Amino acid sequence: MIQVAINGYGTIGKRVADAVREQPDMEVRGVAKTRPNFEAETAVDKGFPLYAAVEERADQFADAGLEIAGPVEDLVDAADVVVDATPSGIGAENKSMYEAYDTPALYQGGEDADLVDTSFNARSNFEDATGADHVRVVSCNTTGLSRVIAPLREAYGVEKVRATLVRRGGDPGQTSRGPINDILPNPVTIPSHHGPDVETIFDDLDIDTLGMKVPATLMHMHSLNVTLEEEVDASEVRDLFAEESRLFLIPERMDIDGSGKLKEYALDAGRPRGDVWENCIWEESISTVGDDLYLFQGIHQESDVVPENVDAIRAVLGEADAEESIETTNETMGIGL
Amino acid sequence: MIQVAINGYGTIGKRVADAVREQPDMEVRGVAKTRPNFEAETAVDKGFPLYAAVEERADQFADAGLEIAGPVEDLVDAADVVVDATPSGIGAENKSMYEAYDTPALYQGGEDADLVDTSFNARSNFEDATGADHVRVVSCNTTGLSRVIAPLREAYGVEKVRATLVRRGGDPGQTSRGPINDILPNPVTIPSHHGPDVETIFDDLDIDTLGMKVPATLMHMHSLNVTLEEEVDASEVRDLFAEESRLFLIPERMDIDGSGKLKEYALDAGRPRGDVWENCIWEESISTVGDDLYLFQGIHQESDVVPENVDAIRAVLGEADAEESIETTNETMGIGL
Repeated sequence: MIQVAINGYGTIGKRVADAVREQPDMEVRGVAKTRPNFEAETAVDKGFPLYAAVEERADQFADAGLEIAGPVEDLVDAADVVVDATPSGIGAENKSMYEAYDTPALYQGGEDADLVDTSFNARSNFEDATGADHVRVVSCNTTGLSRVIAPLREAYGVEKVRATLVRRGGDPGQTSRGPINDILPNPVTIPSHHGPDVETIFDDLDIDTLGMKVPATLMHMHSLNVTLEEEVDASEVRDLFAEESRLFLIPERMDIDGSGKLKEYALDAGRPRGDVWENCIWEESISTVGDDLYLFQGIHQESDVVPENVDAIRAVLGEADAEESIETTNETMGIGL
Repeated sequence: MIQVAINGYGTIGKRVADAVREQPDMEVRGVAKTRPNFEAETAVDKGFPLYAAVEERADQFADAGLEIAGPVEDLVDAADVVVDATPSGIGAENKSMYEAYDTPALYQGGEDADLVDTSFNARSNFEDATGADHVRVVSCNTTGLSRVIAPLREAYGVEKVRATLVRRGGDPGQTSRGPINDILPNPVTIPSHHGPDVETIFDDLDIDTLGMKVPATLMHMHSLNVTLEEEVDASEVRDLFAEESRLFLIPERMDIDGSGKLKEYALDAGRPRGDVWENCIWEESISTVGDDLYLFQGIHQESDVVPENVDAIRAVLGEADAEESIETTNETMGIGL
């Protein structure tokens, strides 16, 4: 059994912990957190050994009635791999600790690409992570773009990608984020950083991205244009995408007009936390005009990278190939709407 | 003096009435409304003769203490031109009335393009409207796109336009519109109707548009990509746009990050109703990657067509050429931030 440490138990970490627990070949060795809150209490309720990410604050957990198994260093030492799910920039600070204990580490998309040996998307470049010590699982948006671009490159070749990412202002729990009643170019400079991030997965890709922020918390929405290297009928592209396990084509009959109904569907389906791990592509939106392909896709920022983290664990340790790992992860998590 | 009738005194009609009143060569002959409300009261307060758009409802005005000058037919008969600013589809129903009184009519962008002799944007095709009986002033979004495309076509040639229109859910006064906390592909099918609408202004243009709706009321936001026929430096494009009187380039020093601050700036500047008649292009966003130009622009849905309606009045009656009319309209309204 692969012993997995999870450092950072917030939006991503808690989801990765739950997903790891479902894997037949993995065990959650423990989770580390900086301070007690409702998430720390839930971790204890779920039986995850809880470690203190900052030793000086360990007392706070005792004051909150939460038992601490030890400092995060003990957890990193005992694990075969650590998933760093700390806020952007903290992963970089933690790198030397992971190196000190010789524990391979996965970081999240908020870290710089040059912190790691390779960036990772299971569908696109699984094998690049084999044996790597430091791997970055790319962000929710980059994951969502990569999953769509990989099959298009393989099937038709991609001349250029242009994408407008209409991003949620914050996650549902981030109560101090904006905007209210506004649409912000964000970043206002073009192209945004998202395109170069996708190029960490496909280094020869021509892609320009534009970002905005809007008053929504549920999901991001991508307006995607891919100029293909050949003219293709839209129905062919729909068939191509239908074969992809992490692309969900929203059928017209479902009458799902936006992220609200998508999330409600996921909750009705009994998904944990209403998570939507797949790219959600509106089937009606898949259109071609000459060699230009267009589509809309919803990307659930809180969860689409979770199966990618699970796959990255196997990739780093060389425990499975892409196909085997993706299949196991999908089956255990229930991916494939 | 050109006698102008305004049929429909809502979001657009009331603004056109105020703008017409500022013109040295025009007079508001009267405004017509279907029912009494706060806008009807304001019309009377401003001294605009008020006509009943639906004769059977004329009593309602009397009940509300508002004096009616007569039925809308009297107004149409007395005017040299009528601006139809009624809700989408009603303009088409009114067409036969305007024909019966032989009064040339301007319609708004919600009407079908085939209702009229020509669609109109002052910067792009002013002369097409000369002597026409029925002219459609294109929608706020189409106006915003046309104003940018016209100079680019003239200076560099345009190979293809791709635009994502992130649209406000409703106007500030439309209290029953959505969405709340959502991002909707709208229409979900691609391309949206906006591209063909721009083609009513430039009939040989290659343009694909995608639409969304978000929980904002202040302005639309366009994420625009124009593939030019030559490679151009972004600074050249900025200089080109700086010459255009209805394009406002938001300078970085102003620290305006979205529609909220834009509207606040317009209110601080004493603009009536805080109107923003110009396209608002973030100067920092103007970027070129090879022959691809990108930018973000905010479009004030309530007001950017108002100066266009004023210009269309002169165009239809042959009272001025494009340059003279645009200059007069700009000066009297105070356009040019």
